Amino acid sequence: MELPLLRRCVCELIGTYCLVLLGCGAMVVDAQTGALTHVGVATVWGLIVMTMIYSIGDLSGAHMNPAVSIAFTALGRLPTRDAASYMVAQFIGATLAALSLRAVLGVGDSQLGATMTILPPMSTWCVEAMMTGILMWIVMGVSTGAKEKSITAGLAVGATITMEAFVAGPLTNASMNPARSLGPAIAASYFENLWLYVTAPIAGALAGGFLYHWIRADSNPNPVIEHITTPEIEITASST
Amino acid sequence: MELPLLRRCVCELIGTYCLVLLGCGAMVVDAQTGALTHVGVATVWGLIVMTMIYSIGDLSGAHMNPAVSIAFTALGRLPTRDAASYMVAQFIGATLAALSLRAVLGVGDSQLGATMTILPPMSTWCVEAMMTGILMWIVMGVSTGAKEKSITAGLAVGATITMEAFVAGPLTNASMNPARSLGPAIAASYFENLWLYVTAPIAGALAGGFLYHWIRADSNPNPVIEHITTPEIEITASST
Amino acid sequence: MELPLLRRCVCELIGTYCLVLLGCGAMVVDAQTGALTHVGVATVWGLIVMTMIYSIGDLSGAHMNPAVSIAFTALGRLPTRDAASYMVAQFIGATLAALSLRAVLGVGDSQLGATMTILPPMSTWCVEAMMTGILMWIVMGVSTGAKEKSITAGLAVGATITMEAFVAGPLTNASMNPARSLGPAIAASYFENLWLYVTAPIAGALAGGFLYHWIRADSNPNPVIEHITTPEIEITASST
Amino acid sequence: MELPLLRRCVCELIGTYCLVLLGCGAMVVDAQTGALTHVGVATVWGLIVMTMIYSIGDLSGAHMNPAVSIAFTALGRLPTRDAASYMVAQFIGATLAALSLRAVLGVGDSQLGATMTILPPMSTWCVEAMMTGILMWIVMGVSTGAKEKSITAGLAVGATITMEAFVAGPLTNASMNPARSLGPAIAASYFENLWLYVTAPIAGALAGGFLYHWIRADSNPNPVIEHITTPEIEITASST
Repeated sequence: MELPLLRRCVCELIGTYCLVLLGCGAMVVDAQTGALTHVGVATVWGLIVMTMIYSIGDLSGAHMNPAVSIAFTALGRLPTRDAASYMVAQFIGATLAALSLRAVLGVGDSQLGATMTILPPMSTWCVEAMMTGILMWIVMGVSTGAKEKSITAGLAVGATITMEAFVAGPLTNASMNPARSLGPAIAASYFENLWLYVTAPIAGALAGGFLYHWIRADSNPNPVIEHITTPEIEITASST
Repeated sequence: MELPLLRRCVCELIGTYCLVLLGCGAMVVDAQTGALTHVGVATVWGLIVMTMIYSIGDLSGAHMNPAVSIAFTALGRLPTRDAASYMVAQFIGATLAALSLRAVLGVGDSQLGATMTILPPMSTWCVEAMMTGILMWIVMGVSTGAKEKSITAGLAVGATITMEAFVAGPLTNASMNPARSLGPAIAASYFENLWLYVTAPIAGALAGGFLYHWIRADSNPNPVIEHITTPEIEITASST
Repeated sequence: MELPLLRRCVCELIGTYCLVLLGCGAMVVDAQTGALTHVGVATVWGLIVMTMIYSIGDLSGAHMNPAVSIAFTALGRLPTRDAASYMVAQFIGATLAALSLRAVLGVGDSQLGATMTILPPMSTWCVEAMMTGILMWIVMGVSTGAKEKSITAGLAVGATITMEAFVAGPLTNASMNPARSLGPAIAASYFENLWLYVTAPIAGALAGGFLYHWIRADSNPNPVIEHITTPEIEITASST
Repeated sequence: MELPLLRRCVCELIGTYCLVLLGCGAMVVDAQTGALTHVGVATVWGLIVMTMIYSIGDLSGAHMNPAVSIAFTALGRLPTRDAASYMVAQFIGATLAALSLRAVLGVGDSQLGATMTILPPMSTWCVEAMMTGILMWIVMGVSTGAKEKSITAGLAVGATITMEAFVAGPLTNASMNPARSLGPAIAASYFENLWLYVTAPIAGALAGGFLYHWIRADSNPNPVIEHITTPEIEITASST
């Protein structure tokens, strides 16, 4: 009953488009009006992730993040071909969203929400990797095990995004997502520190994913095998 | 076990009444006291939608929005007669709510929460259509498929309203709902740009609904047929 | 498997104690430090209701509000003797909580969170009755029907308290609860308009409860009978 | 299917590490930038608890708090050896997190989020004991009884942390957790009132736990026995 890869990629494209449109849109609107405050902007980032997990989690897995797709592939839960296709879709979605924002709101000082940091490069790298590691740990936690977890997946992952954006937002903008950093960077032609925001989340997601995998592995000798060809589909139990 | 149409319309009338009473009420109270801030007002809009979905979702579907009712009809999930009745109920509820607000709080500068925009008309139309499209996509996502979704429907749709109000509120007031725009407009006699707020949400909801429908269609040859006469009732699995 | 009445009353006493301790405590702390803002105070009121519904909802029903207990009795879902006992427990809990706050924080200008209004008496009465009517409508909605609703009950009712406190808090302090008004009034010896805050919520809860009851009645000839002796216990499916 | 004790301790170490890293991190970042406000900081404390309960609740129980582990042991739901191991892991995790914060952000005036109070010692002790008592009452409420509760556990306990931090944060910093107080105290060499923050939460958790246990005991003669060797595992139904 799994959707064809093309349609799942359209879901990832739309999901990442909405993620960047609303998340970076919140940053731009706040920079122009001051109406949202940092708390409001960070809340938007979490809510868009939560709502997309609830609406397309059972279709494509709602990764919307190349670091997450790569980590799932490394763990044997997503075929390499699917991961590569997902990543292309995610980058296209993020870039289109940043271009949409530019069309309606202009570039301005906020650089369309491109990720900027106030820390030295090494600290930035560590913060981004650590935050993405915690994110991937929680993604693993809510996508493995009992079926009831499907109901809490969106809430838990969305809340993780929000709380990490609360804390790391004022430091490194809390990207945790190469696509989310690349889209606005391209649309605003702002490439400073971009390599940090591409490599750190991938390293962090791999570390968090394998750590959780190791912790849980012994309790059941083969808990992952059944999911190899249906990544994340177990999140919402059935795709009809 | 479905409720008679008249009673479902009373539910829609009450739901839309509460939506406008609390949402526009928050805007008026914030304009008079400054106590809520934009973040607080946007949160109220989401919470009233969430609580109504949880309380009347299994009775009438808790549309409270003509754009949503029209899209469900176009998708064959709500009979035309029901949609027309729903829309009358929604417009009556919204207008009564705005009149209630005027009786207690006066009209004042906030125009009873009538929708205003700071963008040019075409940008306003695009923003409203886009936001309603994302809303309808998520409504489709949480009302199609596995039964567990019924628990997350209110949370996901309410969160969508809040995050879109966070981002688009400072620009176009984030109506996404012709009834929500029409009620205060009538009670405050403020009709500027009203045609935008009526046409854009309908166009957006149709686009979002058909896009989701197309994505999901192949995975199951007839997923929708069983719902034609019981719109949204599947959201909470059984109506007693 | 229902708990004896005495223990359920202890639950109501503890629940109402925590409600007033944290809700009015938030008002007093905000008056002294300015740290919470109106948004923070209103959020606390909703969260304490939500957490109590999840923790004692399956024991006593987690009413914590005489208006709700009276409405359930009028609807035949709670025996009169139980309602009377609940109300005594609720008033004791609320008063003890206000006395606890006075011991730690002093009375000060905030009158221990006693309910005050900036509207004329008749408007105040109407706002409190309307808000309690909406609250009771939602309480009915999430405590009647499919079992899955038990999971959403705390979320929906807590969110209702928060959004009504957001909107009506700056006007009438959004009591919606005679016990919550009486406790601080006694501890701070501040009795202005107290009769409003006792009568309006009861009238509103009766109206909201009967309206929902009428809407839903026809769809199932005897949906309520089975619950007459186990009020609200259906909220969480089993009390072990 | 229970995990070996060592792996459960790693979960507790990671959980407490994340708790202090993000919670105290929010306090430090807010002290340096003013971006989060008290409301934002308190929200982070609740969200990290919620997300950890959803991700490791079915592995180790997600205590992350020595006071909770001690109370579960006293109630016969966690073996003494496990509780002692958990507590060592929790203290190590909290201290490592505070050291991580110092490495990236420096100590500064916020003392790495060490708990400070503006009340006299006896009032501080009472506030911390009372808040932890309410927390433990709610932890008991959502970890005893029907299985559906597993879905609400993270939401209810996280919300409790947030609302208590809202109210008691400006007074005593709302620790409710000896490990959360000890970690930053060691890393910042700030030991004032530390004994209060170690003894009060333990006393409060014992009181709250036994009170709930007494209230519920009669309704089922042996509701706890089945859990003696699988603490909290019932929260999420199966650990695969």
